[in-house]
Amino acid sequence: MRLTPEVARERFAGARVARLATSAGRDLAVPHIVPVTFAVHDQVLAFAVDHKPKTSTALRRLRNIAANPQVSVLADGYSEDWSTLWWARADGVASIHPAAPTAVEWLCAKYDQYRERPPDGPVVLVDVRRWSGWAA
Amino acid sequence: MRLTPEVARERFAGARVARLATSAGRDLAVPHIVPVTFAVHDQVLAFAVDHKPKTSTALRRLRNIAANPQVSVLADGYSEDWSTLWWARADGVASIHPAAPTAVEWLCAKYDQYRERPPDGPVVLVDVRRWSGWAA
Repeated sequence: MRLTPEVARERFAGARVARLATSAGRDLAVPHIVPVTFAVHDQVLAFAVDHKPKTSTALRRLRNIAANPQVSVLADGYSEDWSTLWWARADGVASIHPAAPTAVEWLCAKYDQYRERPPDGPVVLVDVRRWSGWAA
Repeated sequence: MRLTPEVARERFAGARVARLATSAGRDLAVPHIVPVTFAVHDQVLAFAVDHKPKTSTALRRLRNIAANPQVSVLADGYSEDWSTLWWARADGVASIHPAAPTAVEWLCAKYDQYRERPPDGPVVLVDVRRWSGWAA
């Protein structure tokens, strides 16, 4: 069944990991997808470039957002009992911030791992325009 | 650390769920992301439109692939111990098949849930051009 925007937002906010899809390039844009740890505050989803090692410093997720700020972010619950499956999606417009102390506070409040070592890289704030979701 | 293509493929193939990112539309294409159950065989990733209820019959994932076959699919392992995190990604070109009995066999071999009720909708085959991944 389809989730209401309120329920989708609530389920999403409670998840510990989500996946960020970005897309850049003209014409047939190539989508790109990476996992992110994140925090939701009102209608804003925040994630940061943190100390978890990356394959590259010139992160494609940031290059894509700079070229095309439209993003889609997904949280889901998988189980071998398919009658309990669910997912929730946040579609919105992202912006990159060299520093965003308030969003870093949200992340540290959610993740002990960040409290020990707050993210010190750029922060991405997604202005969520649509929450959607589904549950079996 | 970056995973070799072989290791990324192996980790990906062993995952039970992945997330599919598609993107269609000209200019600033809007990315779209959904969870998928899937099977990997050699360099092909297969998933099907199955009986798990969908929010719509005119599935955006299929419309996007028809318009732009480039897809990115992600599997990942989240844990509160961030020293064990990993992800693996399959980037490739997708095609839609009204029927693909061999791929349905791969799916049924992997998922008991499909053995009880094989997927009878269209099958998407992704010709994977690049396996990549990362582990902490």
